[in-house]
Amino acid sequence: MRTNYCGLIDTQYLDQIVTLQGWVHRRRDHGGVIFIDLRDREGLVQVVVDPDTKEAFETADKLRNEFVVQIQGKVRHRPEGTTNSNLISGQIEVLAKAIEILNPSVTPPFMMDDDNLSENTRLLHRVLDLRRPEMQRNLRLRYKVALLVRNYLDSAGFIDIETPMLTRSTPEGARDYLVPSRVHPGQFFALPQSPQLFKQLLMVAGFDRYYQITKCFRDEDLRADRQPEFTQIDLETSFLDEEQIMDITESMAVHVFKEAIGVDLGQFPRMTYDDAMFYYGSDKPDLRVSLKFAELTDVMKDVPFKVFSGAANMDGGRVVGLRIPGGAALSRSEIDTYTQFVSIYGAKGLAYIKINDKTQLNDTGLQSPIVKNLTEASLAAIIERTGAENGDLIFFGADKAKVVNEAIGALRIKIGHEKGEAGGYFVKAWRPLWVVDFPMFEHDEDGDRWVACHHPFTSPKPGHEDWLTSNPGACRARAYDMVLNGWEIGGGSVRIHSAEVQSKVFDALKIGPEEAQNKFGFLLDNLKFGAPPHGGLAFGLDRLVTLMTGAESIRDVIAFPKTQRAQCLLTNAPNEVDEKQLREVGIRLRQKAETTA
Amino acid sequence: MRTNYCGLIDTQYLDQIVTLQGWVHRRRDHGGVIFIDLRDREGLVQVVVDPDTKEAFETADKLRNEFVVQIQGKVRHRPEGTTNSNLISGQIEVLAKAIEILNPSVTPPFMMDDDNLSENTRLLHRVLDLRRPEMQRNLRLRYKVALLVRNYLDSAGFIDIETPMLTRSTPEGARDYLVPSRVHPGQFFALPQSPQLFKQLLMVAGFDRYYQITKCFRDEDLRADRQPEFTQIDLETSFLDEEQIMDITESMAVHVFKEAIGVDLGQFPRMTYDDAMFYYGSDKPDLRVSLKFAELTDVMKDVPFKVFSGAANMDGGRVVGLRIPGGAALSRSEIDTYTQFVSIYGAKGLAYIKINDKTQLNDTGLQSPIVKNLTEASLAAIIERTGAENGDLIFFGADKAKVVNEAIGALRIKIGHEKGEAGGYFVKAWRPLWVVDFPMFEHDEDGDRWVACHHPFTSPKPGHEDWLTSNPGACRARAYDMVLNGWEIGGGSVRIHSAEVQSKVFDALKIGPEEAQNKFGFLLDNLKFGAPPHGGLAFGLDRLVTLMTGAESIRDVIAFPKTQRAQCLLTNAPNEVDEKQLREVGIRLRQKAETTA
Repeated sequence: MRTNYCGLIDTQYLDQIVTLQGWVHRRRDHGGVIFIDLRDREGLVQVVVDPDTKEAFETADKLRNEFVVQIQGKVRHRPEGTTNSNLISGQIEVLAKAIEILNPSVTPPFMMDDDNLSENTRLLHRVLDLRRPEMQRNLRLRYKVALLVRNYLDSAGFIDIETPMLTRSTPEGARDYLVPSRVHPGQFFALPQSPQLFKQLLMVAGFDRYYQITKCFRDEDLRADRQPEFTQIDLETSFLDEEQIMDITESMAVHVFKEAIGVDLGQFPRMTYDDAMFYYGSDKPDLRVSLKFAELTDVMKDVPFKVFSGAANMDGGRVVGLRIPGGAALSRSEIDTYTQFVSIYGAKGLAYIKINDKTQLNDTGLQSPIVKNLTEASLAAIIERTGAENGDLIFFGADKAKVVNEAIGALRIKIGHEKGEAGGYFVKAWRPLWVVDFPMFEHDEDGDRWVACHHPFTSPKPGHEDWLTSNPGACRARAYDMVLNGWEIGGGSVRIHSAEVQSKVFDALKIGPEEAQNKFGFLLDNLKFGAPPHGGLAFGLDRLVTLMTGAESIRDVIAFPKTQRAQCLLTNAPNEVDEKQLREVGIRLRQKAETTA
Repeated sequence: MRTNYCGLIDTQYLDQIVTLQGWVHRRRDHGGVIFIDLRDREGLVQVVVDPDTKEAFETADKLRNEFVVQIQGKVRHRPEGTTNSNLISGQIEVLAKAIEILNPSVTPPFMMDDDNLSENTRLLHRVLDLRRPEMQRNLRLRYKVALLVRNYLDSAGFIDIETPMLTRSTPEGARDYLVPSRVHPGQFFALPQSPQLFKQLLMVAGFDRYYQITKCFRDEDLRADRQPEFTQIDLETSFLDEEQIMDITESMAVHVFKEAIGVDLGQFPRMTYDDAMFYYGSDKPDLRVSLKFAELTDVMKDVPFKVFSGAANMDGGRVVGLRIPGGAALSRSEIDTYTQFVSIYGAKGLAYIKINDKTQLNDTGLQSPIVKNLTEASLAAIIERTGAENGDLIFFGADKAKVVNEAIGALRIKIGHEKGEAGGYFVKAWRPLWVVDFPMFEHDEDGDRWVACHHPFTSPKPGHEDWLTSNPGACRARAYDMVLNGWEIGGGSVRIHSAEVQSKVFDALKIGPEEAQNKFGFLLDNLKFGAPPHGGLAFGLDRLVTLMTGAESIRDVIAFPKTQRAQCLLTNAPNEVDEKQLREVGIRLRQKAETTA
């Protein structure tokens, strides 16, 4: 029986006999003595095997990397000059008395402390990859976060209630993962995109405060921060308004960051959606970067420069400036790189002005080919609104607002992260905020219709109900997002608890009564039986932990993730299945599509 | 803002002003005063509305059952003679000062304290059904159990690690639920039947102690205690043997029962699989019933009664007696009912003997048509081995062992529960035990091959490895089941950590190297890289909570269960989906099968 974890033995165990079980992390012979770095989940300990202990020494001689062994020995001080202050066990070593090989290992494809592995190698050999200290730390932090959340919510009266994984397909928002039914051939379950409707029904059922840490599924094209299955900390409350819900969840986030990684998030500032878009072109602004948009649309309407005046006069157009302090030092090739970068977001170019002398509103004071096509008034407004100083550079975005916001918003982040720390416009810190007062709807130009910004169950703000029909674009929602360092880590809303208001929202979304009844009848029907006012929030656990660990991808905080092609390289899933299995669930492959695709 | 939960207001709040939010459970007018039973998740409180408080009274007059209201009022003693000792709030009432209707309700289809609803009605109106105090209690107990488990396992060093829901189909054991892949047309994910392989891989990855409370999926025909999706408390440890794993999990069960429902389970007795089958015909014996089988096979080989001698001489046949104390009083029609009952399990009849005078081994002393066809020696053995006394009755089973065990095993339970308490052979109590030393394999007569009793990753007992090839039937496994009151609530084993032994087991199961590599290659490959000795256990959370609550079905401890036809009546899932959705995932319906089925 193990007496200690390797990584936790320190000087308090001096002279004790310990029994350890773990993996041979590294073995080396030195002056006729064998040294073994023995590893378990808590870390490393140095084991010394002396030739005097003959049997142990013979066994030690057979050991190779990743062999599983049991070692009994005595804890002693390391000789002077050989201590390692990076390890808890760095002051001691274990003098082996007995060694037993519990299981040998073939030679692993890489060393467990190799930090330069390709992601493909790591996912293919995920089990070995998970032995690496970094992955052990990530998954243990993930667990710690989840348990902190659970106990916090428990003390706040929340109850964990499981909602179904095999549920009803409602083709709204993202694509569903389908599960064919064997008992009802031709029919399908869907995996839940979120427990949204069920948690609302639990409020109608009177559970008052619900939470769940649960898997959700979206069959979307994957990006760095997306997985086909992801984990949500999902919660819902009755009788609370948005202020109270934000209070509870902010306190929870503060508690979790404090306990898990010792970070004090402080009080979260609030920012309206409109302000966030106005200043940062994003509804999840990274406030570590202090750069802000300067609004210029109004002053560009009459300038000769068509790119600006065209955008300024366009329906839904926008012109902004982004001041880069000290940016006049940017090289031509750097500017070219940024021009290339914003084109990813649809920007057709990247105008700029270098400020040589801001008192001279001409080609001399302001260095840029566009200066001569701008009016003096507009140049004065640029200087004033951006707050530019000599030696700065101002980038411009001019296009439809969506393109400007995305392109210049992304540029703001990119330059902020690349140059900001040296330039004084980036702080390495935690910058949480609430973004509030989201619009109820955004206009989908393709379909020429309104779509829900959050989801169709979000309540309009008090007094905005009439606009649901008269002016959907002006209607604001009781919705709120928790944003941290440019990531949306949580989002929620107060829901509609009146069947009548819910119908009006469906009307605005052009979901007819029959379609609404067919898709959401089970919610609508139940709202009529005394639904309490309710609302909630969902955190993305994967993102939250990714942020906390500083990992590059959410794949680094998930034990067995899928690739960007939605595959598990370890198990080789998805895979082909027996014809018999398909027959049992009443489906066949659409072979034509397969061979011609 | 609510100041209190309704159900928790007691005399310590006397004279305080409280604000309550909840549902009108019942309203009655009495002597010009309106009484409201207000309900929230914690229970009921009585609210009194006096005509003097005019506005509140007018609102109260409009209230109907299940309206959601906010009520402000003052806590006072109930008048003498009107207290209710069944409620925490039974000594007090709230004199309303202000009432606000938060949401009205249409008339519900049933009252929330109706305990005589059909299951169909309950599942169709599940949201209202969940308002019933019984369901509130069940789900809150379920939550309490889960949290107790989590914190117990945390303190024992276990780490919760999420394993994938979208995984690889391995058609072994039960049927998989399939999920067609859109990115890889013609390929499928499967929902996990359990995290078995992943948890073993987590041990190989060095996490040492893993647990998860997670959904598992089996597309099997449903029974009272089965659901398509069910919840497992799944755990796995490294470097521990079966004794240590049983110790930890037994302590956990004892802790959870104590804390959740105040029951002391005591120390669990151990019983070998062979003994369990010998005495109870079941590997999950209900020890509340003290009736035991008496083995009679050896003494029936030469009796004239062909039913007995035939079974006794049959390969794999068995003859047993089941003594029912005082059973001579059973009526003919009761015996007929039991005969009918055992026929469900394949028994062709149900022989019995009533004991009038056990000293007379003939038609007078022993009342039964079969007595004359039994030898005196066999009758003497029956009396001796069953321990029968005058006034008892002995039932017999004689057939293939499987039929005898199932039929007489089920009869034992049935009679034990129906007659045992009066007859002194049933105790209303908690009777846990461990069943150990399971066979590695059982013989599948249909396929004429060995199949794994537990699963193919279970380790044989030390010394039994050679029998894997020479005598699979004799091979015993390092497997153990936790059984409580006739339910298997948990099962586990020490796993195979050697790739070589694992290959031998696949050989015994006639799974060739290629098939093994194809299906389980990701496990086999990883076992070679220094897999630690490991083992674990999985509890069925649904069953555990069903037992604790005394519910009739696991459906009563699941918020949104499926029917026995694998449907959700609330959301009407599964349902038909758009052709577009099928096209996207590369499948079509097997229409022929649909229309001809």
